Amino acid sequence: MMVTEEPTTAQEAQEAGGAPSKKALKKAAKEADKAAKKEASQASRQPQDNANEPDISEGSYGERPLNQSQDKTVRKVEKVSDLGVSNATQTVWIRARLHTSRAKGKQCFVVLRQGRSTIQGIIAVGENTSKQMLKFVTNIPKESIVDVRGLVQTVPKPIESCTQSDVELICQEFWVVSLAEPRLPLQIDDASRPTPEDGDEDALSIRVNQDTRLDNRILDLRTPANQAIYRIEAGVCKLFREALEKKNFVEIHTPKIISAASEGGANVFTVSYFKTSAFLAQSPQLYKQMAIASDFDRVYTVGSVFRAEDSNTHRHLTEFVGLDLEMAFDTHYHEVVDTIGATFTEIFRGLRDLYADEISAVNKQYPASPFAFLDPPLRLEFPQAVEMLREAGVEIGDEDDLSTPSEKLLGRLVKAKYDTDFFILDKYPLVVRPFYTMPDPSNSKYSNSYDMFMRGEEILSGAQRIHDPKLLSERAKHHGVDLEKIKSYIDAFKYGCPPHAGGGIGLERVTMLYLGLDNIRKTSMFPRDPKRLTP
Amino acid sequence: MMVTEEPTTAQEAQEAGGAPSKKALKKAAKEADKAAKKEASQASRQPQDNANEPDISEGSYGERPLNQSQDKTVRKVEKVSDLGVSNATQTVWIRARLHTSRAKGKQCFVVLRQGRSTIQGIIAVGENTSKQMLKFVTNIPKESIVDVRGLVQTVPKPIESCTQSDVELICQEFWVVSLAEPRLPLQIDDASRPTPEDGDEDALSIRVNQDTRLDNRILDLRTPANQAIYRIEAGVCKLFREALEKKNFVEIHTPKIISAASEGGANVFTVSYFKTSAFLAQSPQLYKQMAIASDFDRVYTVGSVFRAEDSNTHRHLTEFVGLDLEMAFDTHYHEVVDTIGATFTEIFRGLRDLYADEISAVNKQYPASPFAFLDPPLRLEFPQAVEMLREAGVEIGDEDDLSTPSEKLLGRLVKAKYDTDFFILDKYPLVVRPFYTMPDPSNSKYSNSYDMFMRGEEILSGAQRIHDPKLLSERAKHHGVDLEKIKSYIDAFKYGCPPHAGGGIGLERVTMLYLGLDNIRKTSMFPRDPKRLTP
Repeated sequence: MMVTEEPTTAQEAQEAGGAPSKKALKKAAKEADKAAKKEASQASRQPQDNANEPDISEGSYGERPLNQSQDKTVRKVEKVSDLGVSNATQTVWIRARLHTSRAKGKQCFVVLRQGRSTIQGIIAVGENTSKQMLKFVTNIPKESIVDVRGLVQTVPKPIESCTQSDVELICQEFWVVSLAEPRLPLQIDDASRPTPEDGDEDALSIRVNQDTRLDNRILDLRTPANQAIYRIEAGVCKLFREALEKKNFVEIHTPKIISAASEGGANVFTVSYFKTSAFLAQSPQLYKQMAIASDFDRVYTVGSVFRAEDSNTHRHLTEFVGLDLEMAFDTHYHEVVDTIGATFTEIFRGLRDLYADEISAVNKQYPASPFAFLDPPLRLEFPQAVEMLREAGVEIGDEDDLSTPSEKLLGRLVKAKYDTDFFILDKYPLVVRPFYTMPDPSNSKYSNSYDMFMRGEEILSGAQRIHDPKLLSERAKHHGVDLEKIKSYIDAFKYGCPPHAGGGIGLERVTMLYLGLDNIRKTSMFPRDPKRLTP
Repeated sequence: MMVTEEPTTAQEAQEAGGAPSKKALKKAAKEADKAAKKEASQASRQPQDNANEPDISEGSYGERPLNQSQDKTVRKVEKVSDLGVSNATQTVWIRARLHTSRAKGKQCFVVLRQGRSTIQGIIAVGENTSKQMLKFVTNIPKESIVDVRGLVQTVPKPIESCTQSDVELICQEFWVVSLAEPRLPLQIDDASRPTPEDGDEDALSIRVNQDTRLDNRILDLRTPANQAIYRIEAGVCKLFREALEKKNFVEIHTPKIISAASEGGANVFTVSYFKTSAFLAQSPQLYKQMAIASDFDRVYTVGSVFRAEDSNTHRHLTEFVGLDLEMAFDTHYHEVVDTIGATFTEIFRGLRDLYADEISAVNKQYPASPFAFLDPPLRLEFPQAVEMLREAGVEIGDEDDLSTPSEKLLGRLVKAKYDTDFFILDKYPLVVRPFYTMPDPSNSKYSNSYDMFMRGEEILSGAQRIHDPKLLSERAKHHGVDLEKIKSYIDAFKYGCPPHAGGGIGLERVTMLYLGLDNIRKTSMFPRDPKRLTP
């Protein structure tokens, strides 16, 4: 038996490579709605006795009892992503979600999904398959988890709507492991569609907006793009750690509950701490520096960072993951800048080489140009950036900080001139940096500090820190910082501390900008912003 | 020139392998005090003009200007731990701390320390070294960071007081990079001494108590044991991640600020969150389970966990690092138990094989028996534990939870019988476990849940979770949990979820118990407990 299905709906046409017409999209939306209503009205999914006809498939389908680990049988279960022509004529077990199902006369076509992988399955009434089994399968709600035993069969024409396009599964057993409710708050296919072009308003109706996605994050995270994004994000962390461990950095863990806000006290969350109150750390910086003063030489930490900023933008979260590092150097802070730059190069190269599949899965829904980078990375000094911006018509003083639009523009100018989406901007004006920043020894207007940018947005801020308690006190006083409040910070340097520099990276920003995404909520699995605390 | 020094103080005698006598210890304490007073009274450490005598060492010593990265010279700097007989007759640069210095006539013996490594240096007045230089070096406060150029020279007799016992450094240049204050709140040598035997009260006087250590954590962390402990702790994390990544686990990050306390609301810290309030997560469990319901299949997360418990014990912290994992399984939760067990085996084996030096450095100060483990790990069922305890005279009911003393005793009984410091205790009574625990299908008194133990203390708690919303609601109701408060938890399973199990590991406990340490504050770099929020 050889059965393949032609794409009939808008989505199928689109997955087959054609652009969906507006009419097709409207039709698809109607169909989805109709299907949901039909599912909701189904009375029962249990195999039913049929007095008229013996069930030749009895014992080959049904709802399994709740898995309480009754059974210790070790089954050989295949991964959907592994199935291909080499499995042809084999009978295999898979566990997957019922992505879609559609009955057509005496046949039912299902798409079975596992992570980002899909395979077509067919239930066709015949010698080994009863009408009752067909009916049962047809009525299983989408997103239910099923165990399917089937014969792998090659197909004459690729099935464009499935990732496993060379084969299909002739289903012999079909068991429900975990039932989904028949009405889904969002359809995976809708949540998986590419962002519509500007002006294509009609198309919007069958996309899913950000809040609906986040409110139903469990479903939203099942889309191919999301399955890929969080594997890429895990990759960023892994590559960051590997790059630093090769260079003898030691991983440390720093407390999140702190007694005083080291940088003043604005934008910190307050915590009730038994009979007193405390704060959530805005950065692990003091603790990284203490580790340096304690002879750990090179340290990194990956952990939550909290900012009580009421910023409702595409790039601010109230809680994010910081990739932080700090490093003692021998003579010049550029030893650290070079180390951080090389770390980014390793991350970018690792993502490109090891996560190509995932990146392409994200690009299918969110198209973006590949991330361009140079090795070694481009390092510009602040006055060069000012000059480039002035040439482009921006009015900016020598010691002004860069505005967000200026940063964006600078990113475009740098990309045009140097063909890189990543660069280091060194030597920021002293006046725009925090009090602990080491002044430039040759020009007191500048400092030994740097930001790093991806696609024109800042993803790291860092500096050589003042490791001398006397100068640190002077600079704090100059900035109007209350010395009493930062006493423990200053005291950390009283017993000898090597010169050191470091920086903090926002994980979600790196992932967002590497992939060219437009919102940081797309790269935080369960994002927190001033208006969102759930799920 | 060949100069070696014989041990003269208690500490030196001890480091040379001899046990210090009480008298020697008292003498050492007096000496340390005297030395500190002397240092405090020193007027100046700058090279001084000496009208009577030209300074032949001028330009070879002094205090360097504050490092603001004036200089970009790339120096070849050796690591102290690399210096040995193969470097003999070489002139090298090192950067290290001045661990100790002692003038003896026209010579000054210094110990230079870098992390856990030490080397002896000698400054001897003679052809190339002036009296002024000798005086300068003698007056540098301990713990200052110095750059030293010296000739590596083999020694006729091992220098037992230094890790680099085969060579010494004839110092030619001696520069202060960062000056320590002359009075230290604790002496590194005191903080590095082994815990005294019981009853040896006299010896206590020159140890450093826990609070003094933690109050001056920057100094305390410089001891060889602490330098090693936090590298071992980093190793636990690294081995945990590596073991799981080999098995296709994906790293995720879960929010620490949450809107509702999923397990009732006791023991949670409250956070002010803009105009509302929120809580600090006691565990990433809900989010790990949501990731499973979102098709991530196998996930792990390393992050801060918060417990507002007013427990002032050796093993409780209010903030610790959780190593959490969750895994969908095919037929039986023992697939997960076996995976976790094998992960521990890989951690224990990795520590033993890759961190032997660090473990021995910790053991020098805190002696402990090597950690014994079996491969595969021992798995006992709860009724077996009850039987062992009853045989040992403990009165315990079939469905009673284990008390802390019972756990300790069980650990000893298991060690005696099976020669392992690690075991898995499976099948806890249902009544002592949280509502979301899957009941045992064959005996409703028990559950599919487990704890894991190291040296008789619990370091992991886990279970198969109920993945069916109906049963989950029933169990919650049975436990008197307000269904409204856990609605989002229950809803997470409405759209199909595979059977799954997991667990959470306390990083600091694993490190503490692996090393046989007596207090969790020894394995948290900056510990938080009900009474400590600083540094």
